[in-house]
Amino acid sequence: MNFGSDNMGPAHPKVMESVLHANDGYAIPYGGDLLMDEVRDRLRTLFEAPEAEVFLVATGTAANALALSTLVQPWQAVFCSAVAHIHADECGAPELFTGGSKLILVPETDARIDAKGLSTTIEEGLPRGLHFVQRGALSLTQVTERGTVYPPGTLTELARIAKAHDMPVHLDGARFANALVALGCSPAEMTWKAGIDAVSFGATKNGCMGVEAVILFDPDRAAEFAFRRKRGAHLFSKHRYLSAQMAAYLRDDLWLDMARASNAAMARLAKGLRALPGTTLLHPVEANMAFVTLPRAAHIRAVREGAAYFLTLEELEGGAPDDPIAARLVTNWSTTDDEIDRFLALLAG
Amino acid sequence: MNFGSDNMGPAHPKVMESVLHANDGYAIPYGGDLLMDEVRDRLRTLFEAPEAEVFLVATGTAANALALSTLVQPWQAVFCSAVAHIHADECGAPELFTGGSKLILVPETDARIDAKGLSTTIEEGLPRGLHFVQRGALSLTQVTERGTVYPPGTLTELARIAKAHDMPVHLDGARFANALVALGCSPAEMTWKAGIDAVSFGATKNGCMGVEAVILFDPDRAAEFAFRRKRGAHLFSKHRYLSAQMAAYLRDDLWLDMARASNAAMARLAKGLRALPGTTLLHPVEANMAFVTLPRAAHIRAVREGAAYFLTLEELEGGAPDDPIAARLVTNWSTTDDEIDRFLALLAG
Amino acid sequence: MNFGSDNMGPAHPKVMESVLHANDGYAIPYGGDLLMDEVRDRLRTLFEAPEAEVFLVATGTAANALALSTLVQPWQAVFCSAVAHIHADECGAPELFTGGSKLILVPETDARIDAKGLSTTIEEGLPRGLHFVQRGALSLTQVTERGTVYPPGTLTELARIAKAHDMPVHLDGARFANALVALGCSPAEMTWKAGIDAVSFGATKNGCMGVEAVILFDPDRAAEFAFRRKRGAHLFSKHRYLSAQMAAYLRDDLWLDMARASNAAMARLAKGLRALPGTTLLHPVEANMAFVTLPRAAHIRAVREGAAYFLTLEELEGGAPDDPIAARLVTNWSTTDDEIDRFLALLAG
Amino acid sequence: MNFGSDNMGPAHPKVMESVLHANDGYAIPYGGDLLMDEVRDRLRTLFEAPEAEVFLVATGTAANALALSTLVQPWQAVFCSAVAHIHADECGAPELFTGGSKLILVPETDARIDAKGLSTTIEEGLPRGLHFVQRGALSLTQVTERGTVYPPGTLTELARIAKAHDMPVHLDGARFANALVALGCSPAEMTWKAGIDAVSFGATKNGCMGVEAVILFDPDRAAEFAFRRKRGAHLFSKHRYLSAQMAAYLRDDLWLDMARASNAAMARLAKGLRALPGTTLLHPVEANMAFVTLPRAAHIRAVREGAAYFLTLEELEGGAPDDPIAARLVTNWSTTDDEIDRFLALLAG
Repeated sequence: MNFGSDNMGPAHPKVMESVLHANDGYAIPYGGDLLMDEVRDRLRTLFEAPEAEVFLVATGTAANALALSTLVQPWQAVFCSAVAHIHADECGAPELFTGGSKLILVPETDARIDAKGLSTTIEEGLPRGLHFVQRGALSLTQVTERGTVYPPGTLTELARIAKAHDMPVHLDGARFANALVALGCSPAEMTWKAGIDAVSFGATKNGCMGVEAVILFDPDRAAEFAFRRKRGAHLFSKHRYLSAQMAAYLRDDLWLDMARASNAAMARLAKGLRALPGTTLLHPVEANMAFVTLPRAAHIRAVREGAAYFLTLEELEGGAPDDPIAARLVTNWSTTDDEIDRFLALLAG
Repeated sequence: MNFGSDNMGPAHPKVMESVLHANDGYAIPYGGDLLMDEVRDRLRTLFEAPEAEVFLVATGTAANALALSTLVQPWQAVFCSAVAHIHADECGAPELFTGGSKLILVPETDARIDAKGLSTTIEEGLPRGLHFVQRGALSLTQVTERGTVYPPGTLTELARIAKAHDMPVHLDGARFANALVALGCSPAEMTWKAGIDAVSFGATKNGCMGVEAVILFDPDRAAEFAFRRKRGAHLFSKHRYLSAQMAAYLRDDLWLDMARASNAAMARLAKGLRALPGTTLLHPVEANMAFVTLPRAAHIRAVREGAAYFLTLEELEGGAPDDPIAARLVTNWSTTDDEIDRFLALLAG
Repeated sequence: MNFGSDNMGPAHPKVMESVLHANDGYAIPYGGDLLMDEVRDRLRTLFEAPEAEVFLVATGTAANALALSTLVQPWQAVFCSAVAHIHADECGAPELFTGGSKLILVPETDARIDAKGLSTTIEEGLPRGLHFVQRGALSLTQVTERGTVYPPGTLTELARIAKAHDMPVHLDGARFANALVALGCSPAEMTWKAGIDAVSFGATKNGCMGVEAVILFDPDRAAEFAFRRKRGAHLFSKHRYLSAQMAAYLRDDLWLDMARASNAAMARLAKGLRALPGTTLLHPVEANMAFVTLPRAAHIRAVREGAAYFLTLEELEGGAPDDPIAARLVTNWSTTDDEIDRFLALLAG
Repeated sequence: MNFGSDNMGPAHPKVMESVLHANDGYAIPYGGDLLMDEVRDRLRTLFEAPEAEVFLVATGTAANALALSTLVQPWQAVFCSAVAHIHADECGAPELFTGGSKLILVPETDARIDAKGLSTTIEEGLPRGLHFVQRGALSLTQVTERGTVYPPGTLTELARIAKAHDMPVHLDGARFANALVALGCSPAEMTWKAGIDAVSFGATKNGCMGVEAVILFDPDRAAEFAFRRKRGAHLFSKHRYLSAQMAAYLRDDLWLDMARASNAAMARLAKGLRALPGTTLLHPVEANMAFVTLPRAAHIRAVREGAAYFLTLEELEGGAPDDPIAARLVTNWSTTDDEIDRFLALLAG
């Protein structure tokens, strides 16, 4: 039982099998393996984008930072929200890989940027000429960092604003599958049809060991990406183990099944949380994450059981047992109904 | 049968088992997993360095570039040979991670830097004051990029020169195990006892899927390394899969057994090559790599069978069948005597 | 008549004479000139800091970006206000020179950061461990970008907060002299006695052609600064012309006299503005800058006369003549009473 | 009397007058001054390049590093000689401004790269695919760092090789005028007609205080250059003082007259040196620099008189009085026949 993060859960057995199977004999290194051809084909088909270029890396931060580095110049800005992973959780990786681009923070509600805030923020910089950093790219996160999702219409609207200022759009899809099944739309609708130019297509959190695809809908950016990936030390010599994970992930809808299971688990958990006294959901629960305030005592019980991760027992010491303390709860593909029910019982005390 | 590179071969079954085993249930992310504790302890014991700090990354280039970035400033130089992997095969990764340090090339013979060449090269820059880049670090490769090894005495001598100019020393040990068993010395003798400050301890080429340890003998550099690894997008959320590989690699001398098998296979191959007409070994064969000129016709046969990798059939077209063409041949832990004998027969025609 | 910016005004004749005088014969290049010794001595005496290290560069942005680059690591943050020159007006120069540090924006009122906002902003990042950028340095501007000044007590309080988080403090003193004469305190009181570690001591805006001193109270940072200045292409071969400007600036209190003249001119102008109908001062006027809304018609008259600079006539077209439109007005050492009075008459229409 | 470097000599009185004259009244900052229009027009006319874009900076290193940064990507290489100023004398400035490009050293004779060496060096990297840095740009220096000049035909040949590998060509013209008058060709012949894409057009060494033009024959690179200059802190607010120097430099052939005087002085000096016993010229003397071995005793006499600069008296201590010790001697526009004759007498002892 663990609701700390989807990156604490296991990989799916089919992913592991695929990796094991890929270990047989020799393979061409550096992405020349046959499994990579399968991965590329599957993603192009799934995204209805036969020209798209696909690259695999092992971490979400690498996917984001490398994708952004092909979209902006060092003297340009990336527009994102203050809670965006690229700003708040990557220790400056975008700044390293872009050569020092500035991340400009756009107002958000429930981690969703809105059109007006985006326009205003972009336009503030316009009159400053070359004294300020220039417009570079827009980066959106889907599922957002607060567990909400952007409807495709909103993505389209935000992308249109970016394009009106000559900016390409990046989508941080660390939880891409969770968003897709939440919305019931197609990968194309959630990306290039909405104006997205580059996607970090996450698989690690949703049941792989460590693999993310970067999908570039403009194949002209591919050569640059390849050099940047190599130079960033993110090109694997034994690349087949990345391909094998992603191939299994995409076969037979495994990725969608896992995302559905994860979202369903969160729906069940959220329902239980809403019924708990002293508990408040801080943002709409739309995928596999909930942000919630729990009484201090409930927190202590959860941490003691290893069910959550945010705070240590030392940090929870002192104060009244019913003080509301915030937590993020995340489900994953392997979360069971039984685990949820035991967790809710634990929180209820 | 494949002698193209040790990065084309499979991982050892025990490594795969360990990864599979690690997949059970939940684990603390970002290096907080219990297996990492085992890895750290094992490496500290093996290196007789209880204070050393240990970090895992997934590629050799990451290990090298991140290690160097903690040793030099952007306005300083890394001294290395012209065939050093960090110069010739990383597309500028050291330059990216160090913030633009210059790699200054030191003369080499059989890829080994010698003391006189090192001293001369360092001293050439001295009179230029702040107009030239400053002395930063020395980087040596063991096994070298030409398949030779430095005796510990030579490492000591080179490190002493570096230290006399206030420079720390990095060892690119992408094939650390192969060098160690070739020399029959201890990890400590080949590193800190010889004056090495930071080691890229490779495991990928020698039977893992993708994991390298960076060992810092000066624990004061550890905090910086941790930030740089994160910022470089090289900190894995599901870190346990890196730990699991390295733990299995180090258990029960697996790493040494694999290196011994690989070196023994190369010894057998080299013996056969020496007996082949029209074949010349270009450098001493001291570990698991041979550099050799083969007649064009032998080359074509090898490429056709997928046994080597350097050139395509198109590139081999034209010219006389007995033109000497250079190749690198590499064995790995899984290379069998039968494969070697079939390969030699293939080359003999 | 021109109130567009103090960087549009002329250099003082004594500064020009000094440069002319320095042109005689040969001089040691790269800062080895004798005038630089005079400059260093004068600044050490003025700042009561005999150990301080002094460097000259030609632009304020160079002074700021290089000073910051010696105070923070690439994975660290610089805390500053959203209107700070380093954030809003340097096109990412701090990001370039620091290797990609993040500028984190602290709330401001009249461009002054307050203690509470600073503490809150710093503390927000603390629980995120290595996932967020680390605390690096605080940067304050004096005179601020809105024409206000920090009393030494406030500087001390802000520096104390920075120091409590192990952060050094940088002062962007592009208008250092204007602040000093406004406050009537000593250079030491406004800097190291208040906890400032590095100062960009501006002279360009206040009557030189192009020279700024960077003063480092911790001489241990000097060697790094020297390398960074050279590497940043900001070390002048014919350095004497920088020294000559700064030497004249500091002799016989010329710098203070010019700042006093400039501030007095602004006081006269502000008084006149307060009496103008339809005119609102947006921030307290404390040195040589005023931010003001003027009726569109007044704006158009000012632009037509070349007296201001913010907007073009095209941009001012349309709308009602009495629409309030914001402007920054700046005086300089050469501004005359007559110019002010003519300008006020022009605005009054 | 001083033959240490042309950067130790004074600026021409007409340059100083022009600066003084420019100080009158107000001017538009950041390059919007009217004198900049004159400079741009003059350079376009001189270079027969009406579309060329022109930017001014204050140091030669800034000109070189910024020009190169618009020509290469971070994962690409700049090909240059080992004695190139960009490699040997800029403390890594090109690496900083390009974001970490690698400088690959091409063999030289008398500091001149030859076609064969260039081709070989470029081609060595080709088979390595994305493992090595990619081809970026060629940089040549004219006058070279050893005082020789490339005939336009050689420039054309080298540029053709670069272009055959899709590389633009940069010319470091820190002593552009000296080369031009030595060759008797036109600026166009020495640049774009020979295949040069970007020129660092030096004026500092040849009689200005500190100003260099960067001339981009491809105007499409101009916007990027403007942002990079600003971000590099090399855009002057009081830009008129740069423009004023360059305007005077270009008026009435002053730049050519000064270069002719400087070269003629060197010719006289070289003639004298050739007649001195114990003296050997190390490279052909073709412009305003000589490299020479002098007896230790001659050296000591020269240093004592402040006539040269290379070594200190301490460094010259010990050894026999007639030991040959190398020196660089440089003349400038102000060097007089009398100074030369006195210097030769001093050396003769």
